[in-house]
Amino acid sequence: MFANVTEPGVVVPMAAALAIGLGALGPGIGIGLAVKGAMEAIGRNPEAEGAVRLTMIIGAALAEAVAIYAFVVAVIIAFVL
Amino acid sequence: MFANVTEPGVVVPMAAALAIGLGALGPGIGIGLAVKGAMEAIGRNPEAEGAVRLTMIIGAALAEAVAIYAFVVAVIIAFVL
Amino acid sequence: MFANVTEPGVVVPMAAALAIGLGALGPGIGIGLAVKGAMEAIGRNPEAEGAVRLTMIIGAALAEAVAIYAFVVAVIIAFVL
Repeated sequence: MFANVTEPGVVVPMAAALAIGLGALGPGIGIGLAVKGAMEAIGRNPEAEGAVRLTMIIGAALAEAVAIYAFVVAVIIAFVL
Repeated sequence: MFANVTEPGVVVPMAAALAIGLGALGPGIGIGLAVKGAMEAIGRNPEAEGAVRLTMIIGAALAEAVAIYAFVVAVIIAFVL
Repeated sequence: MFANVTEPGVVVPMAAALAIGLGALGPGIGIGLAVKGAMEAIGRNPEAEGAVRLTMIIGAALAEAVAIYAFVVAVIIAFVL
């Protein structure tokens, strides 16, 4: 993608962008799938609302953590490298 | 993609674009999936409306946060790098 | 794609284009999925129209916000960078 790049400063912004850009792709879709499943479960059985919601939050937080890893790496690339 | 790039200023706009462009892809689809599930749940069981809506907002906010990470990184790239 | 790019002005238009072009892809599909779900819900259960419509508007606004982030970044690229 970069030919004859001679300074790190040229690559750092693009690297930070790809870190969060690609890193947000999976968690964004994954959280959506998780919430979609929770919606279907509550629609089928509204009495399970509390159990479904708690479990959905725990699961979505795990996917959210993946996005946070990408965010942390992007910030490290931007400010440390 | 860039040959003979020698200045960071050339890369910064493209990097900010890729950060939010790719970063918005996953959350955009994910929120859509979440809302689609909520619609189906309410259609199947309109009495669960309140429970479905509250859980949908919580879940979509988690996906929205992923997009905000990408937005923050894009702004960092644009104004700091 | 770019050979011998030496000025930021050459990259800025393409970067603004990619920011909103890629950034609109996910929310566009996502809002479509949300509305599709609303259609199916009302088709199955027309009495739920009010509940479906309100929840759809809330959910689609969350996906719309993702597209607005991309729009803001595209405008920043165009006028600030």
